[in-house]
Amino acid sequence: MGIEGSRQEAQSDRIRLGMVGGGQGAFIGAVHRIAARLDDQFALVAGALSSDPARAKASAAEIGIAPDRSYGSYEEMAKAESARPDGIEAVSIVTPNNVHAPAARAFLEAGIHVICDKPMTTTVAEAEGLVDLVKKTGKVFVLTHNYTGYPMIRQARAMVAAGELGDIRVVQVEYPQDWLTERAELSGSKQAEWRTDPKRSGAGGSIGDIGTHAYNLAAFVSGLETEALLAQLTTFVPGRLLDDDVQILLRYHGGARGMLWASQVAVGNENGLKLRVYGTKGGLEWTQADPNYLWFTRFGEPRQLLTRAGAGAGPQAARVSRVPAGHPEGYLEGFATIYAEAARAIRAARSGAAPDADVIYPTVEDGLEGMRFIEAAVASSKGGNVWTRLR
Amino acid sequence: MGIEGSRQEAQSDRIRLGMVGGGQGAFIGAVHRIAARLDDQFALVAGALSSDPARAKASAAEIGIAPDRSYGSYEEMAKAESARPDGIEAVSIVTPNNVHAPAARAFLEAGIHVICDKPMTTTVAEAEGLVDLVKKTGKVFVLTHNYTGYPMIRQARAMVAAGELGDIRVVQVEYPQDWLTERAELSGSKQAEWRTDPKRSGAGGSIGDIGTHAYNLAAFVSGLETEALLAQLTTFVPGRLLDDDVQILLRYHGGARGMLWASQVAVGNENGLKLRVYGTKGGLEWTQADPNYLWFTRFGEPRQLLTRAGAGAGPQAARVSRVPAGHPEGYLEGFATIYAEAARAIRAARSGAAPDADVIYPTVEDGLEGMRFIEAAVASSKGGNVWTRLR
Amino acid sequence: MGIEGSRQEAQSDRIRLGMVGGGQGAFIGAVHRIAARLDDQFALVAGALSSDPARAKASAAEIGIAPDRSYGSYEEMAKAESARPDGIEAVSIVTPNNVHAPAARAFLEAGIHVICDKPMTTTVAEAEGLVDLVKKTGKVFVLTHNYTGYPMIRQARAMVAAGELGDIRVVQVEYPQDWLTERAELSGSKQAEWRTDPKRSGAGGSIGDIGTHAYNLAAFVSGLETEALLAQLTTFVPGRLLDDDVQILLRYHGGARGMLWASQVAVGNENGLKLRVYGTKGGLEWTQADPNYLWFTRFGEPRQLLTRAGAGAGPQAARVSRVPAGHPEGYLEGFATIYAEAARAIRAARSGAAPDADVIYPTVEDGLEGMRFIEAAVASSKGGNVWTRLR
Amino acid sequence: MGIEGSRQEAQSDRIRLGMVGGGQGAFIGAVHRIAARLDDQFALVAGALSSDPARAKASAAEIGIAPDRSYGSYEEMAKAESARPDGIEAVSIVTPNNVHAPAARAFLEAGIHVICDKPMTTTVAEAEGLVDLVKKTGKVFVLTHNYTGYPMIRQARAMVAAGELGDIRVVQVEYPQDWLTERAELSGSKQAEWRTDPKRSGAGGSIGDIGTHAYNLAAFVSGLETEALLAQLTTFVPGRLLDDDVQILLRYHGGARGMLWASQVAVGNENGLKLRVYGTKGGLEWTQADPNYLWFTRFGEPRQLLTRAGAGAGPQAARVSRVPAGHPEGYLEGFATIYAEAARAIRAARSGAAPDADVIYPTVEDGLEGMRFIEAAVASSKGGNVWTRLR
Repeated sequence: MGIEGSRQEAQSDRIRLGMVGGGQGAFIGAVHRIAARLDDQFALVAGALSSDPARAKASAAEIGIAPDRSYGSYEEMAKAESARPDGIEAVSIVTPNNVHAPAARAFLEAGIHVICDKPMTTTVAEAEGLVDLVKKTGKVFVLTHNYTGYPMIRQARAMVAAGELGDIRVVQVEYPQDWLTERAELSGSKQAEWRTDPKRSGAGGSIGDIGTHAYNLAAFVSGLETEALLAQLTTFVPGRLLDDDVQILLRYHGGARGMLWASQVAVGNENGLKLRVYGTKGGLEWTQADPNYLWFTRFGEPRQLLTRAGAGAGPQAARVSRVPAGHPEGYLEGFATIYAEAARAIRAARSGAAPDADVIYPTVEDGLEGMRFIEAAVASSKGGNVWTRLR
Repeated sequence: MGIEGSRQEAQSDRIRLGMVGGGQGAFIGAVHRIAARLDDQFALVAGALSSDPARAKASAAEIGIAPDRSYGSYEEMAKAESARPDGIEAVSIVTPNNVHAPAARAFLEAGIHVICDKPMTTTVAEAEGLVDLVKKTGKVFVLTHNYTGYPMIRQARAMVAAGELGDIRVVQVEYPQDWLTERAELSGSKQAEWRTDPKRSGAGGSIGDIGTHAYNLAAFVSGLETEALLAQLTTFVPGRLLDDDVQILLRYHGGARGMLWASQVAVGNENGLKLRVYGTKGGLEWTQADPNYLWFTRFGEPRQLLTRAGAGAGPQAARVSRVPAGHPEGYLEGFATIYAEAARAIRAARSGAAPDADVIYPTVEDGLEGMRFIEAAVASSKGGNVWTRLR
Repeated sequence: MGIEGSRQEAQSDRIRLGMVGGGQGAFIGAVHRIAARLDDQFALVAGALSSDPARAKASAAEIGIAPDRSYGSYEEMAKAESARPDGIEAVSIVTPNNVHAPAARAFLEAGIHVICDKPMTTTVAEAEGLVDLVKKTGKVFVLTHNYTGYPMIRQARAMVAAGELGDIRVVQVEYPQDWLTERAELSGSKQAEWRTDPKRSGAGGSIGDIGTHAYNLAAFVSGLETEALLAQLTTFVPGRLLDDDVQILLRYHGGARGMLWASQVAVGNENGLKLRVYGTKGGLEWTQADPNYLWFTRFGEPRQLLTRAGAGAGPQAARVSRVPAGHPEGYLEGFATIYAEAARAIRAARSGAAPDADVIYPTVEDGLEGMRFIEAAVASSKGGNVWTRLR
Repeated sequence: MGIEGSRQEAQSDRIRLGMVGGGQGAFIGAVHRIAARLDDQFALVAGALSSDPARAKASAAEIGIAPDRSYGSYEEMAKAESARPDGIEAVSIVTPNNVHAPAARAFLEAGIHVICDKPMTTTVAEAEGLVDLVKKTGKVFVLTHNYTGYPMIRQARAMVAAGELGDIRVVQVEYPQDWLTERAELSGSKQAEWRTDPKRSGAGGSIGDIGTHAYNLAAFVSGLETEALLAQLTTFVPGRLLDDDVQILLRYHGGARGMLWASQVAVGNENGLKLRVYGTKGGLEWTQADPNYLWFTRFGEPRQLLTRAGAGAGPQAARVSRVPAGHPEGYLEGFATIYAEAARAIRAARSGAAPDADVIYPTVEDGLEGMRFIEAAVASSKGGNVWTRLR
């Protein structure tokens, strides 16, 4: 195998978890459940898995949720679970975007920690409301910008923070896909349907679905704050109601410049999230499809290929690694790391403590930032591609 | 995300599982536990996690095994668990090699299914005994040649079986590592210690640890049976007792020729398992470090890069995929697939049925084949690198 | 070797060539000379290799130009050579940008064909003048946008033209370098000195040096015409007088959208020219550092890796290939193809004919387009990053 | 462009060169001519381009050889040219293998330097005769193992020689192709015809054509000497008279072990020459299809990707580079370097001096070693795959 196991998985005292959405036919629900299970920190014990009662019930049975804890709505679940002595401590919200905010509010107000999919809401106003509510309730709120859980992304962030790249000058981030090249929303794809429906997705199409991931990742690694953006959103597929291609220029405080491209019509790309960061002293390059690698160059030296858990990867990567170098970890492991970080924060909250300083996860403020990004981009694009501030 | 979720995880009626080995400090134990948990088919309820009683106890507590089901030895565990009405149905054996056979015998004789790490035993004779015992008891026996769980390996096997490569001519398989380039077994690495100790590993060093994986993978994909081999085993690091580099020529029935290289001293390689298969009509290439890709060429046509769950990947890959194309799956997912297949076989056995025809896992016969491979290679090498039959 | 030689090199009746610039210490002069020589179509017989007379003389001697045909200035050379019965038929102009236009005029007016480095001039006005003069004189004018000579770029262009990508939607082109990350122009680099000097380079720094290459390549392959651009030019290195990073949005006639990035401060990039084109039916991807490959995907099918002279590469690539598939061709071969195309055009002109229809090279109009691109980008950037038309 | 031009091309005082073979339809003749021309060190002035007189004449006319210096046979050419005051100084022999030795003898005996394609002869005895004759005549003899001309191969050799890898333990070299997967020799391919004909190729098929390249390259870089080999040669394609797949184990003096694979039936491989060398301190990896890269790992450190003319490439690579880092050089440039080295040796011989110490080219002794390799491999294979010494 190569190296010693570096990481303790498994806990006997699991956190009781509920789930909203994620019934049969939903893709992301199963991903959240595997992620929650992988490090054995959570026990899924309740659910409002579908707005369709029959489907909710069947889905619950299938994944081993007791019938009396399968609910017909998140409101009902929040109320019932908060009344039980063994009620859920946390909930995962994995619905279309428009349900995120009301569901999150219901659980936060019921004293239940929230793990929520992205984009966080459908408007900035909703997002601001959530920020306030999280502050008021003191509950843990984790947004599943799952790509921040990849070990080599943690490594990249640590290297930037340690000054190994010098002052950042240029950020290049992109997220091309091709699955909406044709009008899949008319062919029965549930995934395509709600993502191209403004009622369920909000004002952004590809910008909300994948653009926010790209934007968040760039900020997470570079540590930069956006001053303004200039966006060109396009709908290439006739009849589609939301953008399927996004081209953005970014200006960061401090003078760095960025470009962001997200597309759902770039034929030959599956989930091509890629980040490049260049500074006065060095450069980094990372690709989601091959996430165990991080290219690093110090100016004037040969390119280095750092590998997860390999030589050159530091403690921030090791902390969230599960298997030795050369054995690939993937999407589910990165997602599971978000859950593992959430578990650390929730366990700290149990005892009234702050989580350890090295616990990192996307917060409600990151969710607000993502909504500001979407609204600013939509406004910039509609306004003739002009520089638009985020706040 | 791109595509609909294609796979049902999670079961309420989990299989009760025990574990032998895998206490604190062991790498592979945690891997098996994650793999067992990932698809929610197993509940780990008992263990004999270490031959050191204090460590066994502490390890059990840490991973949530009840104190009364943490045992001091596998013999004790087999006896006690088979006597309980809620006793374990299956056991995972994740010890050094020399414990595999006696532990497996104890559980099989107690009527408990076995999931066992590889190489299966330390001698061919032991392996033959296990084959007989599995036959006699009718229990499920799964060997964790985990690389056979990768979706694109399933794809490759299906393509060969469907004749897409024509008649196979050449097989090239290799598994280079570099972690034993220096004498790590003297520096406190538990992993290195037992792997270089003939008492615990058997007659083979790198050939047993990684050579058997390479050999098994080549057979799994190509469907070929070995006629004879010619081996050159080398111990490069002074003072080491077992081989750390293996170079083998293979002759398959039907005329195909193969080369196998495994090394633990190839600097720059982490876990570089790679398989290439060439036939009269096409060729395939796969690398473990980037397991979501499969190169395929039909003679006279451009090379194609097939991707897990992407265009060109068929039902055999889809059946064992969990996330859409472009989101990488890794080592743990492949390992988990072995457990998922074991679960299918064990559930079938519960009802006295045979598992579905599409359930595939490495068997006790594959384990015997691996031991024959090791013994033939050691004999060939000692005998002056001469062709040696496997049976 | 693999395949039959597909291409006739060598000619006894070589075209007599002169050179302006390219003396000792100049990089690009040697490249042009190798390119001219590679297919044996030219004989270099005259030169005004340096504005420094001693260096001009020494340089001429070194490369075998007779002393009486080594000139002190291009004016002198144009006059003297056009008066000789065995005078040069064509001239290569490989000076800093500010000399291109006056030198080209001198030779065109003397009845001599011109091969000229890029960017073509320092202003649009100069470029328009050259267009007129070429029209008036009827001489061949070839601009060395050398990347258009790569076989797989020819292949890509042919595939787009044949409709294999459908209607083009998105173009992504980039040209990152890192050699000007620090202020190399102060450390004695002749290359850096003139490229960062507005007097010799014109109004654009990186945009002229490499941005024009990227822009030209995108147009060459996609066949699209630019409607407008929106540019953000940045000078990151303190004290530098011209831009060293360029970020541009492009709108093409017909609705396609593009992004162009060129940078000389992107640490870890050498000459990272990369082009991606996406249409309604397919997508293409090509990288200069690995020029013998072209990724091609038909929507819904596996990715294909087309190779120069390999399966899947068509006649347009074969026509400009010299060695079999799998043997890499590189930068000099692509450059030589521009010279070989120039030779075909010049030979046709000798006999008063038009060159064959398949002869392709960047023209004086392409040079004008490049100057419009530079001026529009500089204007857009200075004007607050607003959409700017090219004409 | 990035960096200053580092290399002086071009010479007025060109070496007069003749060629044997390489007429119309021959692939490798054109390659040699481009290689000879690229650095402007040779003038091709005479030829015996084909054994077919009409074709010889037409070929000569096409490439600009004067009619009176186009000969009907190499014997005639050697005699006539050695009698001329302006006769050729060197000759390139680019015929099928069986002509190499007699032609080389004729020119050496006529006092003419020889550049000869590989394998050098068809038997060891012939090769030994050539070694003696070269020694006796004192003429320069260069064997075109062209892959030794690649800059990153020079770099690799220099790193091994400097001890950066420590003591070499394992060499892995392979050269897979697929062009003889079917019986191309029956479909009119001249290349396939003579390469599969024992009369013209000698006792080896793929082993002579590509196996010798792989073997030579491994020795060139590693500096190791072979003690013995054990070979398995296979003819997969029915009816073919020579081997089309070669699998070899190598034992080097000093204890290193090697594996060599060459194949002409490995579908999906074009010219997949690849070399890996592992020592006690580091490892190297190089692939011909991507020749500007060299992977280098120091044990325990991250992998580095060294690039031709880039950071980390030393003087041995720079000495034979023509363009800046990031601009790919290819097969023809590597081949041209062999010619440039030959020119240095021949110029030194003109003045009776030894060439500079840094001039490196494959010699007549290397050619003998290649023939010993072929004969030993054929003998080992026929004798039941037994260890066979090379001398």
